[in-house]
Amino acid sequence: MTRLSLPTSLHDLPTPCLVLDAGRMERNIDRMRARMADLGVPLRPHLKTGKSIEVAQQMMATPQGPATVSTLAEARRFAQAGVRDIVYAVGITPAKLPEILDLRAQGVDLAVLLDSVEQAAAVADAARESGAVIPALIEIDCDGHRSGVQSDDRDRLLAIAAALGEGGALRGVLTHAGDSYGARGEAALRACAEAERLAVVTAAQHLRAGGHACPVVSVGSTPTALSATDLAGVTEVRAGVYVFFDLVMAGIGVCDHQEIALSVLATVIGHQEDKGWILVDAGWMALSRDRGTASQDVDQGYGLVCGVDGAPFGDLIVAQANQEHGVLALRTGSTGRLPRLAIGDRVRIFPNHACATAAQHDRYHVVRGDDAVEAIWPRFGGW
Amino acid sequence: MTRLSLPTSLHDLPTPCLVLDAGRMERNIDRMRARMADLGVPLRPHLKTGKSIEVAQQMMATPQGPATVSTLAEARRFAQAGVRDIVYAVGITPAKLPEILDLRAQGVDLAVLLDSVEQAAAVADAARESGAVIPALIEIDCDGHRSGVQSDDRDRLLAIAAALGEGGALRGVLTHAGDSYGARGEAALRACAEAERLAVVTAAQHLRAGGHACPVVSVGSTPTALSATDLAGVTEVRAGVYVFFDLVMAGIGVCDHQEIALSVLATVIGHQEDKGWILVDAGWMALSRDRGTASQDVDQGYGLVCGVDGAPFGDLIVAQANQEHGVLALRTGSTGRLPRLAIGDRVRIFPNHACATAAQHDRYHVVRGDDAVEAIWPRFGGW
Repeated sequence: MTRLSLPTSLHDLPTPCLVLDAGRMERNIDRMRARMADLGVPLRPHLKTGKSIEVAQQMMATPQGPATVSTLAEARRFAQAGVRDIVYAVGITPAKLPEILDLRAQGVDLAVLLDSVEQAAAVADAARESGAVIPALIEIDCDGHRSGVQSDDRDRLLAIAAALGEGGALRGVLTHAGDSYGARGEAALRACAEAERLAVVTAAQHLRAGGHACPVVSVGSTPTALSATDLAGVTEVRAGVYVFFDLVMAGIGVCDHQEIALSVLATVIGHQEDKGWILVDAGWMALSRDRGTASQDVDQGYGLVCGVDGAPFGDLIVAQANQEHGVLALRTGSTGRLPRLAIGDRVRIFPNHACATAAQHDRYHVVRGDDAVEAIWPRFGGW
Repeated sequence: MTRLSLPTSLHDLPTPCLVLDAGRMERNIDRMRARMADLGVPLRPHLKTGKSIEVAQQMMATPQGPATVSTLAEARRFAQAGVRDIVYAVGITPAKLPEILDLRAQGVDLAVLLDSVEQAAAVADAARESGAVIPALIEIDCDGHRSGVQSDDRDRLLAIAAALGEGGALRGVLTHAGDSYGARGEAALRACAEAERLAVVTAAQHLRAGGHACPVVSVGSTPTALSATDLAGVTEVRAGVYVFFDLVMAGIGVCDHQEIALSVLATVIGHQEDKGWILVDAGWMALSRDRGTASQDVDQGYGLVCGVDGAPFGDLIVAQANQEHGVLALRTGSTGRLPRLAIGDRVRIFPNHACATAAQHDRYHVVRGDDAVEAIWPRFGGW
């Protein structure tokens, strides 16, 4: 693109694009750190939300980690950037083990996740064949949400541990309270956090009673991390989306709109006055198709619309999204007035789900409370 | 990633990844070409679905175009690849005009889209200041779906044409029958196609009666392109998703499952036997959050599951999706049986919406009816 100088303001950036408020991000990171300090449990931040070296460096306790990732692409990229303590928190498949061994041979303490004897046997075989060790965590199902062994399924836990043998060294147990995303109110969130804690602590007890060391007892989700009051028996907490927060988290009640650090900058491209619509150049390609607030008390459409200063207009949401068109309208039932926005005016849109919206972009335009762009941070995708 | 040789089979590729069946794609392209030949109207293929030089080269009538794009990034990339006749079919904003002028100065006949006097005046100003011409199409609203001038709003049409003046040369009118995605059955689809045709032909008549040449009369959507029986007065058809087709198009009835050329390859990572779930390593990051079939007669969840050979298992869909987890289950009410799929087995998943799913990936793994990968084609994103 022909441009004489780098854009330095939200008023100059080509739209749509992704904006990250570094001040808000730093406060979000500080808030989670303070909570973990209060609870006395170390944090293993999940780097899947940011997929950025710069964001990761601020989230982690040290440049070497610890960290959690959701893809081998993240493991590779963060390993290249010097991270040395990584949990790959998606169930392992045999075809991915050569790359795990390769990263481990480079000095990265990369642990895998599994919930079956078949996976454990494959891990043990790969480790034995290579003469190396692959540490493994057993995934525990704390809420019927996804994968994992039931915490009281002692036989399966012990069978997996036995199948791992010495090459596939059992490192511990791990769970994720996916149901916490559907919880409402402090009591419900605390109950999710306690269910999460109890599930892994129970599983660890079964394993230890069976003669297996189980040094790691790992829980994690942003809602439970921010709601737990007691993490007895837990050795680490994983969380990720807190770094940016989003409308789903605000809907659950674990953050305010003023804490949402991520937004999509868009430009007004038209009006349909009879319908009360303002059209912008950010559609689902820039916002993602995530409709996570659709099942919450307040449906934010494809995002909540703010001025360039990051302050919401009120009831103005992205009511519809095509590939490159967003339709701004007042939410149904609103008694507010449509703001006057002319062709070429700019808005910022808070995302439903930060992980999904950020994934539609290849860079962050970093601001700090105002419209000056102080840095551009690349982000990556892929597997 | 350490790999001794390039993967040459769907059984070797790292998962999740995007698979393109070139034979199916070529047949889809041939089918659309044959229809346009029957209707006697040239095609201006929309390149936003593929975002790939290789796919574009097969869709276009010549290496120079004509073509339609949805972003300036597409305009730039396809211009670099030699395309010289491009319509940027999203409403223009003043800040994007310098890049339009820049591409035109490089010899690309790039036309812009607008639906307001404000945009027309900005285009005319930019053209005058640079001493160049910027051809513009007026967007017509044929179904209340998105942006555009009502076809009978003669005054607004003439005011826009007047504001364009000589620098912003009026090239014609353009519409998109977005409502056709919600149509069901041949009669409804034909009605959408006729509404689309009538809207632009009517608008062109108003402009011509007002003394303006209106050489281009452009319609377009895959459902209407495949359903129209008469395109009298239309000078070109735009369509894009037909190149791959998808479950939404199959649900509308304009393609069969055997014509869907795009799929996501995934690996089984676990089971929850009591729930009838099979877990795979393709979640919404690989499939997109698009749920376009949710409002159709057959809800395909996050995708319809096939074997590695591309044949659907029947009622097996991606019932739930997390970031990197897909939950395969039989659709509600199915009397079928869950297929036996072991850890490490592979499946292919047809997407709800090809544009959205392809956008989650940076390359196509090209096959031709079997499991041999014959090429890797890059795709791009961004704006």
